Amino acid sequence: MTVSEPDVYDRMCPSRGVLEHVTSRWGVLVLAALRDRGYRFGELRRRIDGVSEKMLAQTLQTLERDGFVHRKAHPVIPPRVDYSLTPLGTEAAELVTGLVEWIERRLPQVESARELHGARREG
Amino acid sequence: MTVSEPDVYDRMCPSRGVLEHVTSRWGVLVLAALRDRGYRFGELRRRIDGVSEKMLAQTLQTLERDGFVHRKAHPVIPPRVDYSLTPLGTEAAELVTGLVEWIERRLPQVESARELHGARREG
Repeated sequence: MTVSEPDVYDRMCPSRGVLEHVTSRWGVLVLAALRDRGYRFGELRRRIDGVSEKMLAQTLQTLERDGFVHRKAHPVIPPRVDYSLTPLGTEAAELVTGLVEWIERRLPQVESARELHGARREG
Repeated sequence: MTVSEPDVYDRMCPSRGVLEHVTSRWGVLVLAALRDRGYRFGELRRRIDGVSEKMLAQTLQTLERDGFVHRKAHPVIPPRVDYSLTPLGTEAAELVTGLVEWIERRLPQVESARELHGARREG
């Protein structure tokens, strides 16, 4: 049996799907937030401005299924669920955080590029 | 005037939009592919399995506007357009490629996690 190497450029390769989970709109922010510390669901929702309850639950489920996020439900009333990163998730989160921090740092350059681009189109 | 630091967790911060461009479904793959070399439009479309002409054009336009991609139209018949990374885009592409390569490398672990997750749900 020949098993080919994972290749995200191939749409049939399962690595493409994993890439989409990790880089999804909310997946990126969930991984980056959980890199700082564990969060309860409601806390995480407040941390990530703009995410809906439904999208956050779906994102956490996907990342849990891929082995990046650990979900711990405490048998208490009211229910309490904590989310944290697995060792595999921590590796992903480090790479994602590198990208997030780079974007925050480079925002001025991106904004200059946009101004220049707008000026060229008008000029 | 107080200017707050860029913060991707804030939905009003422009860095959130840049993050979404860089981590978009096709943005990731365009940046990673262009890190290897410059591409013509059609070549790039063949490299990135599954992307439509429309989505590739839109992704390239967004990345060009943000200052990551340089577009060079040659005045020849038939028209020829080359795409390459700017220095800013090269930085982004390095971070993105680190993530892509990590995912390809870690795919077996993700697949094991998925099997375990499925087994736990059934058991």
